Amino acid sequence: MYKLEKIEGGVCAANGFYADGISAGLKANNAKDMAFIYADTMCEIASTFTTNKMAAAPIKHFKSKGDFKTNFVLINSKNANAMTGDAGVDDIEEVLSHLPSKAVNPVMSSTGVIGVRLPKEKLINGLAQFDLTQQNPTSAAQAIMTTDSFKKEIAFQVTLRDGSSFNIGAMAKGAGMINPAMATMLCFITTDADVANATMQKILDRVVITTFNAASVDGDTSTNDTVMLLSNSKSGAYDEEAFEDALHQIMEFMAKQMVKDGEGATKLVTYKVTGAKDDREAEVVAKALSNSLLVKTALYGEDPNWGRIASTVGASGAEAKEETLTISFDDVCVYEKGKLYFDAEMEKVAAAVMKKDEFTISCDLGLGSGEFTAFGCDLGYEYVKINADYRT
Amino acid sequence: MYKLEKIEGGVCAANGFYADGISAGLKANNAKDMAFIYADTMCEIASTFTTNKMAAAPIKHFKSKGDFKTNFVLINSKNANAMTGDAGVDDIEEVLSHLPSKAVNPVMSSTGVIGVRLPKEKLINGLAQFDLTQQNPTSAAQAIMTTDSFKKEIAFQVTLRDGSSFNIGAMAKGAGMINPAMATMLCFITTDADVANATMQKILDRVVITTFNAASVDGDTSTNDTVMLLSNSKSGAYDEEAFEDALHQIMEFMAKQMVKDGEGATKLVTYKVTGAKDDREAEVVAKALSNSLLVKTALYGEDPNWGRIASTVGASGAEAKEETLTISFDDVCVYEKGKLYFDAEMEKVAAAVMKKDEFTISCDLGLGSGEFTAFGCDLGYEYVKINADYRT
Repeated sequence: MYKLEKIEGGVCAANGFYADGISAGLKANNAKDMAFIYADTMCEIASTFTTNKMAAAPIKHFKSKGDFKTNFVLINSKNANAMTGDAGVDDIEEVLSHLPSKAVNPVMSSTGVIGVRLPKEKLINGLAQFDLTQQNPTSAAQAIMTTDSFKKEIAFQVTLRDGSSFNIGAMAKGAGMINPAMATMLCFITTDADVANATMQKILDRVVITTFNAASVDGDTSTNDTVMLLSNSKSGAYDEEAFEDALHQIMEFMAKQMVKDGEGATKLVTYKVTGAKDDREAEVVAKALSNSLLVKTALYGEDPNWGRIASTVGASGAEAKEETLTISFDDVCVYEKGKLYFDAEMEKVAAAVMKKDEFTISCDLGLGSGEFTAFGCDLGYEYVKINADYRT
Repeated sequence: MYKLEKIEGGVCAANGFYADGISAGLKANNAKDMAFIYADTMCEIASTFTTNKMAAAPIKHFKSKGDFKTNFVLINSKNANAMTGDAGVDDIEEVLSHLPSKAVNPVMSSTGVIGVRLPKEKLINGLAQFDLTQQNPTSAAQAIMTTDSFKKEIAFQVTLRDGSSFNIGAMAKGAGMINPAMATMLCFITTDADVANATMQKILDRVVITTFNAASVDGDTSTNDTVMLLSNSKSGAYDEEAFEDALHQIMEFMAKQMVKDGEGATKLVTYKVTGAKDDREAEVVAKALSNSLLVKTALYGEDPNWGRIASTVGASGAEAKEETLTISFDDVCVYEKGKLYFDAEMEKVAAAVMKKDEFTISCDLGLGSGEFTAFGCDLGYEYVKINADYRT
């Protein structure tokens, strides 16, 4: 028994965390492009990073540190510091060396264009604007955005049965190059729960599978994907089930927010695959659906073209049969185990579902008990517009 | 020593083959939508079909026949006869039963919308328009088109060292749902080469890997992909090397034509991957590149955004390293083994390559001797337009 209550405060909702965003001049028009998260005591840190073999310099820098505690995360947008080799890591060390001495074992996280050296002078000059006593989580959430059209933050107060409570809050960015196998998404979560570091990493690894790793905007896994979870234990309160539930709700919220904010996206679609031979095959099908260009353009056209769903299931590589497959749009079943009953009337009902901003496409493969749920979006003209000339 | 000479005649270029296309009323405005290929003697047949588990009824019908010779192929566009169950196969048998008795062991091939029963009355009525003495390969090639913007046919006369010669010709369709693992592409090839059936199937299986299976428009593998190769041995001439060379040139031409005619495509890009751990890994990388939405939209934007190439290589799952990777656009090397020398001048030169209708992106992974070449296209507004409301 515990209670989850949504509260304000983002990454500053947990006791002892400070954050702000400023303009260091990387983005045009003095838009915010550099943020910090600072904790007034040292924090345990759990993390998960991209599986892209061209992992960016900030990820190499983080991993080179081995086991460590920290109280400071520096984040910039507009430049990914990826494909920059050893020089990229050196740039990070130089920038971090200019932080005030209160920042212990600081780490960095970057997002933006790949293959350009970090404009370190601008960043170093920008550091002077930081005030570590500020609690402006929304400014921080804005500063880490790239093609995002809205900022992404959330926080919960978790009250346990004995009346004790802890807070957990997060900010994230991500709108394109999103196919987290652990995605260009960044997510920073802070908590004052009294959680042991080893447990925290295990829970994070578990939760990421069904949240960020289940989300796709375009099937492209970025060089910079990062989730960091910082805890300072200040509340003295902890319950594993409550903590995992809160973390799951936060990460699922952020994953859905990213897909909803998918470049040019107008719809958030949940792909619920059941009846697969096993969970792994269900995942293969769910991700094939969320990444299929033909499915995504049909969604954009609000066309209940279930034939493309069936074809994608068949092409996914997973075991599947025409005779056992069932496809539904929300509660409208359009194809059931070999029965073709998609007529003009049903097309009207199915088309009405497709007009919604959010709906579920269910595929039951009718073969076993494997299941997986993925989150995807449509693909329209705006996606092309945003990505045809991203760098300029 | 042999000579390949391009000739007119498409699927009627080989001695003894007849073909035509007519309107059976499936497409609007009396557009051609049904074609036949007829041979005046029985033919050996080699074939390769989609690996999609929802394979269409014509493919099930073909496979159910076991070993057979034939002299007749009936082809319709606008309806894929896929996801139609046993009834779909029954529909084929009924339609074929109305062919004249000269058609022995006839087979059928379909392309178009998935999940709608074949309008068999229209097809049966249309059969009356067929004249099996006609040699109108171009009409046949037009009748099998769906979203194709141009017809696809080619033929060669192959002259051997001893002066004997044979012909080989083909027609194909395909513009979307193209990711042949064996694709919605159809290709029909006819020859009068004196080739043994077992050899012909082996050669077809070999050639399909580096031609159709190396091509992708959208990464979606269709329910209907079919390549059929019919031979009647009438020329009495044959040479394996010459035959395979001609077949390879025909299938590579058709694969490239499909990609060039990719829905909304403006560019044909060859992805040449070398230096991979092995050929399989090179194939994984080449296909990841040709299917990446971020790469495809950058191509459309004519933006030499090599960072997306690097990121896609890294995300492909193949072994890859920032320090050993080299990326070129035609002969302009933009990134070489950790060296970041992409400046404004090079950007101008690289951008000039991107403005071409056809060019090559080369990635040398610097790890081994594995190589693979894939064919892809850009993705622009037209792709979205064509696919957002394909069925109407």
